Amino acid sequence: MISDTMAHREYKVVGTRPIRHDGVDKVTGRALFGADTNLPGMLYGKVLRSPHAHARIISIDVSRAEAHPDVRAVATAADLPPAKPVSQEPVLGQTPSENIMARQKVLYKGHPIAAIAAASPHVAEEALSLIEVEYEPLPAVTNVEDAMGPSAPILHEHWTGTGDGRPGGTNVSVHQPYSSGDLEEGFRAADLVMEREFRTKTVHQGYIEPQSATAWWAPDGRLTVWCSSQGHFGIRDNTARLLGVPVSSIKVVPMEIGGGFGGKLPVYLEPIAAVLSRRSGYPVKITMDRTEVLEATGPTSGSYVRVKMGVTREGRITAAHAYFAFEAGAFPGAPLAGASAAVFAPYNIENVGIDGYDVVDNKPKTTAYRAPGAPIVAFAVESLVDEIAERLRMDPMELRLLNAAHQGTRRADGVLNGRIGAQETMEAVRSHEHYSAPLEGKYRGRGVGMGFCRNNSGMACAVANVLSDGTVSLIEGSPDIGGTRTSLAQQLAEVLGVPIGDVVPQVADTDTIGYTSATGGSGVTFKSGWAAFEAANDVKRQLVQRAARVWDVPEEEVEYGDGVLQHSADTELRLTFKEIAAMLPDTGGPVVGRANLNPGGSSGSYSANIVDVEVDPETGKVSILRYTAFQDAGTAIHPSYVEGQIQGGTSQGVGWALSEEYFMSDDGRMLNTSFLDYRMPTSLDLPMIEPVIVEVPNPGHPYGVRGVGEANIVPPLAALANAVYDAVGVRMTHLPMTPVSIVKALKVE
Amino acid sequence: MISDTMAHREYKVVGTRPIRHDGVDKVTGRALFGADTNLPGMLYGKVLRSPHAHARIISIDVSRAEAHPDVRAVATAADLPPAKPVSQEPVLGQTPSENIMARQKVLYKGHPIAAIAAASPHVAEEALSLIEVEYEPLPAVTNVEDAMGPSAPILHEHWTGTGDGRPGGTNVSVHQPYSSGDLEEGFRAADLVMEREFRTKTVHQGYIEPQSATAWWAPDGRLTVWCSSQGHFGIRDNTARLLGVPVSSIKVVPMEIGGGFGGKLPVYLEPIAAVLSRRSGYPVKITMDRTEVLEATGPTSGSYVRVKMGVTREGRITAAHAYFAFEAGAFPGAPLAGASAAVFAPYNIENVGIDGYDVVDNKPKTTAYRAPGAPIVAFAVESLVDEIAERLRMDPMELRLLNAAHQGTRRADGVLNGRIGAQETMEAVRSHEHYSAPLEGKYRGRGVGMGFCRNNSGMACAVANVLSDGTVSLIEGSPDIGGTRTSLAQQLAEVLGVPIGDVVPQVADTDTIGYTSATGGSGVTFKSGWAAFEAANDVKRQLVQRAARVWDVPEEEVEYGDGVLQHSADTELRLTFKEIAAMLPDTGGPVVGRANLNPGGSSGSYSANIVDVEVDPETGKVSILRYTAFQDAGTAIHPSYVEGQIQGGTSQGVGWALSEEYFMSDDGRMLNTSFLDYRMPTSLDLPMIEPVIVEVPNPGHPYGVRGVGEANIVPPLAALANAVYDAVGVRMTHLPMTPVSIVKALKVE
Repeated sequence: MISDTMAHREYKVVGTRPIRHDGVDKVTGRALFGADTNLPGMLYGKVLRSPHAHARIISIDVSRAEAHPDVRAVATAADLPPAKPVSQEPVLGQTPSENIMARQKVLYKGHPIAAIAAASPHVAEEALSLIEVEYEPLPAVTNVEDAMGPSAPILHEHWTGTGDGRPGGTNVSVHQPYSSGDLEEGFRAADLVMEREFRTKTVHQGYIEPQSATAWWAPDGRLTVWCSSQGHFGIRDNTARLLGVPVSSIKVVPMEIGGGFGGKLPVYLEPIAAVLSRRSGYPVKITMDRTEVLEATGPTSGSYVRVKMGVTREGRITAAHAYFAFEAGAFPGAPLAGASAAVFAPYNIENVGIDGYDVVDNKPKTTAYRAPGAPIVAFAVESLVDEIAERLRMDPMELRLLNAAHQGTRRADGVLNGRIGAQETMEAVRSHEHYSAPLEGKYRGRGVGMGFCRNNSGMACAVANVLSDGTVSLIEGSPDIGGTRTSLAQQLAEVLGVPIGDVVPQVADTDTIGYTSATGGSGVTFKSGWAAFEAANDVKRQLVQRAARVWDVPEEEVEYGDGVLQHSADTELRLTFKEIAAMLPDTGGPVVGRANLNPGGSSGSYSANIVDVEVDPETGKVSILRYTAFQDAGTAIHPSYVEGQIQGGTSQGVGWALSEEYFMSDDGRMLNTSFLDYRMPTSLDLPMIEPVIVEVPNPGHPYGVRGVGEANIVPPLAALANAVYDAVGVRMTHLPMTPVSIVKALKVE
Repeated sequence: MISDTMAHREYKVVGTRPIRHDGVDKVTGRALFGADTNLPGMLYGKVLRSPHAHARIISIDVSRAEAHPDVRAVATAADLPPAKPVSQEPVLGQTPSENIMARQKVLYKGHPIAAIAAASPHVAEEALSLIEVEYEPLPAVTNVEDAMGPSAPILHEHWTGTGDGRPGGTNVSVHQPYSSGDLEEGFRAADLVMEREFRTKTVHQGYIEPQSATAWWAPDGRLTVWCSSQGHFGIRDNTARLLGVPVSSIKVVPMEIGGGFGGKLPVYLEPIAAVLSRRSGYPVKITMDRTEVLEATGPTSGSYVRVKMGVTREGRITAAHAYFAFEAGAFPGAPLAGASAAVFAPYNIENVGIDGYDVVDNKPKTTAYRAPGAPIVAFAVESLVDEIAERLRMDPMELRLLNAAHQGTRRADGVLNGRIGAQETMEAVRSHEHYSAPLEGKYRGRGVGMGFCRNNSGMACAVANVLSDGTVSLIEGSPDIGGTRTSLAQQLAEVLGVPIGDVVPQVADTDTIGYTSATGGSGVTFKSGWAAFEAANDVKRQLVQRAARVWDVPEEEVEYGDGVLQHSADTELRLTFKEIAAMLPDTGGPVVGRANLNPGGSSGSYSANIVDVEVDPETGKVSILRYTAFQDAGTAIHPSYVEGQIQGGTSQGVGWALSEEYFMSDDGRMLNTSFLDYRMPTSLDLPMIEPVIVEVPNPGHPYGVRGVGEANIVPPLAALANAVYDAVGVRMTHLPMTPVSIVKALKVE
């Protein structure tokens, strides 16, 4: 369903729902993913991982492994260039060398120590036991509050304090404050001030395809890497940096990707496979199993959040403050910026303050997860807003609308809002039939919640080749996760007035297409779509020139519209796109359009949920009865894929809210390292999620695109907590709301 | 060695000899050729081929094969769209459907009948015997003179006569005459008129890599083909036409190619693999063995040639006529045009006539072979010119120089000569030390001969991406056979003033780069080199714009030279290519250059040989004592690779002259279908071939390129025949000059 604010009826291809170009490949098994790479003479690599969550490495002896006749290469951190001590300041987009292979210390269970390549994966795995590592185990800390505490074991001993006053080192990487207005004055002006604490656990993206990387390092120094990732240029740049070679010596071939959600931005296996290939002389493939994915890739932060808000009797928010401490895992880089952007984003608050903390502990290094940081802080703020509405006896959406952010107001992180869709999204919720539908029965409740993702842009390139049969091949550099081959092709087809089926999109490797930033920040349909738009316009210009030459008329007299070239006066002079395409070879050669840009103008997306639940008071099980999920897409280029994103993100939010968590032992081991025990929602746990697309076109994009991948994961955490409260009267302030935790809360109540 | 006419001392990269970018890959086995393709679930195809040279197909019964439990698919011509009767007029660049799989008749031994896909190549091969084909054998003809004779069996019974007066059908596809001036008058003006007949046998390119094609046809109709070829766009277009699908539904991925020499322009296996994939649902790979390559791909024509020339006492050629009949094999398409261009190309002859015949017989369909047609006619003309010089008691090079073609004269096929290098090449021969070096000893002799190839152009595209480390990736569409990644990269590097090692060239698939015509006609360094030149200029323009923006100055004040951007007045404002490359992300995004063109301006190349031989009068064996090979390269972009082409082409010419031939049985079977029996020259048969590059830059190309791949194969046939005459006094007028044929000729003498 698309809400009424939709505003692009003039388009012919944009806004339609063609079948995705890669659809058949993906449903028939023809699409090749990372682990499908097979090369002549290829070896298989396996990684030896730390059994300890925290330990000093006394010695690593690989001699027995190297002596094994079936082992073709052994690698350790000694095969990577020396690394500087781990920076306390996180460096965006850069994987630390120590996370690829441990040096002095292991910092989490699963931390790589060494790797082996052999002719079979079984031999490689078996031979890992021949590597002798002597450890000095250290106490581990796997919780953000403990990690900030005075007796916490320190992970990076050279770090200096960041104002937390703790002597003898710190686990705090960064304290990131923002403030504007006068917070004290704001709280004084309030009639009601409430403060609450919230806690969330580490959760994983749970993409279906485990990481896999294949590397082939030739004697001339040229390294080719095949892997699935969200950004093969980033994989190239990081691999080059970690191996100490120029980026131009590496080609990364993007394989199809079976889900990433932020988790496939960093490198893990690529440099190891490369080193094993260099040592063995053969291509080497390493594929993780699920346990390795959960223990040693990048989940998102567990957190502690404290939010304080002041409101007048009439419901105007006068001041708000958020303190949030995020687990970064073993190396710094928790999503403070995303959280700061999102925390109060739906609202226009004059006096506002944020204190974000990036805190390391003995878990795998976190990485981006769909709207990084935003679900955690929205869980807190939207729960509190719900409680405030209750206290003020106001309708929760009325309270929100009264305080809605709009063009010209500022976000808590200081960014000035352009044309945003906060109000439109709130209004779509309030006017939706679900919002006022009767909900009868005991232990049943309804909750709402808002969400926001700032979205992002970046460099993007595209090349468009006109083929002689009147079709166009579109070469772009954004790995296609959610149907973006099609959403890009639509923007090209719109410009050229050709059918979408006549566009053949293709994601090219790092040597073939110009630098294109990662598939992340909901940015592909925005930035690479814009590149496709520009490449199409370049084609159009050249076709106009060509027609002018063919007809022997000035270019100014040639018009292009709806896929037809037409002389402005002489109606006899007319060529369809297919006709001129067939003529190109004999009239001067092929036509190729290109675009290379780094567009600004990206703009955030708002989202919202209405959810009905029923809670079983005996078992604590939460059953979802009905779910409506709203999101401002800007212009929905391909509404079906926008709806798919909304449904997918909502499902992940439901998992985070109700069942997913890293369950840690006292000595820092994750205890539920399989999908049997790490409980993601299945189809049995979810109702039909009704997506509602709100369209507030972004004036900063040729077709009004905002980006749709992320904002949808944000509202479910609070919406479900609010629904549970509505059903059984307990405010769940820590996630996940498992049956056990609900039963416990009901007993306390 | 480069001769003194060289004229490009101003270049920095053009004319140097860097190591080729794909060199290490190719010497270490990392380069992936056609047969290296491996895909998940891939099946193997084998082709059932006709045991008869000529037969009517009564029936094909595949039911037993289809019933075999291990057979996954069976294909016959019935799986291809219906084909019109074989056109009598050859269609350039189009493989006839009947050559892919036979329909009513088989026309040569090895003609495909059916194909099978199975999980192993052995099972597939074994199962071929389950296909039952009933034939009605017909008499075969495998010789051009017989095929034109009155009692010849007719291959294509629906063809009508072409003026040869023969009732009841014809094997003559085309009679292609040219004439200019007044031939009768010309011969009347001559003091000496000589006419001679020459015969050559069918020879094969003998590329080291047999054909291999892998096809994967998805249920959505998208077909991907992996194969090595000389032009993946041509493979795509032909496969599309033969399967009756649009070109945009096919992607052809170019694998590395292990030699082609013209023989890898057509499709053979691609449509069969595609049909087997469609029927089985899996990818299917078919790889030929050497026997299949010799029996069922495209060698070049066997021939009958008759040349008549008239000269004055002083050595002026007053008239010349050439009659040549070429075997086309089973389907029309003998290289009449190339022969017509080359036949008298070295000379300026006012009264000239040509009668070329394209004649089918029961051999595999011929295809292009290095300077198609030219070696055959040059063998005839250059032998006759040698004999005329002897009769006139003139130095053979003096006679040639007296009649040399030059700018403003016309070729026999009517083309007006532009700036050509005929005279310069002849002068290089005459002034070379080898030409006047003493040659002592009985049975030793020296011969010279001229050669010519018209060369060619075509559509070409290139894309150049500037990488952040200051290197440039160059994407182009010409399969690299002779080091053209490097010769293209050099032209890009020359424009941008960057080191050649900073350019990373890559040959892209048909979806990724714009239409680029085949690697043939010695055209890649010309056309795709020009595209690289234009793409580099596009980069340069954008870098100038970017620097102007960074410095906030008008574009006109920014100069680019030697890889440095410089303000015209303010010497402080200076950025190297590497510096601005690193700044691109933050100053507006990446820079990508593109070019798409169909350049005219290509110009032919002349070649010449001096060769010394010794003939063993007992055995007839010809030993080559010394070999000097000359060629006008225009500008030699990469002299080492030009020299390599000269040596390679000369070697193939030596094989054609001395040892290679299709040895046919009376019933039309080739009897020497392996490299043990089909005798190509080995290193033991060849001396060091000294290459001499003549440089007469082509004014029709930015760097003066002519193209160097082909002209070199042309002179050896006559030069060796002339040397044999000089050694033992017999004129060898048919090839190959095997020991047996020389002994026979000596006995007749």
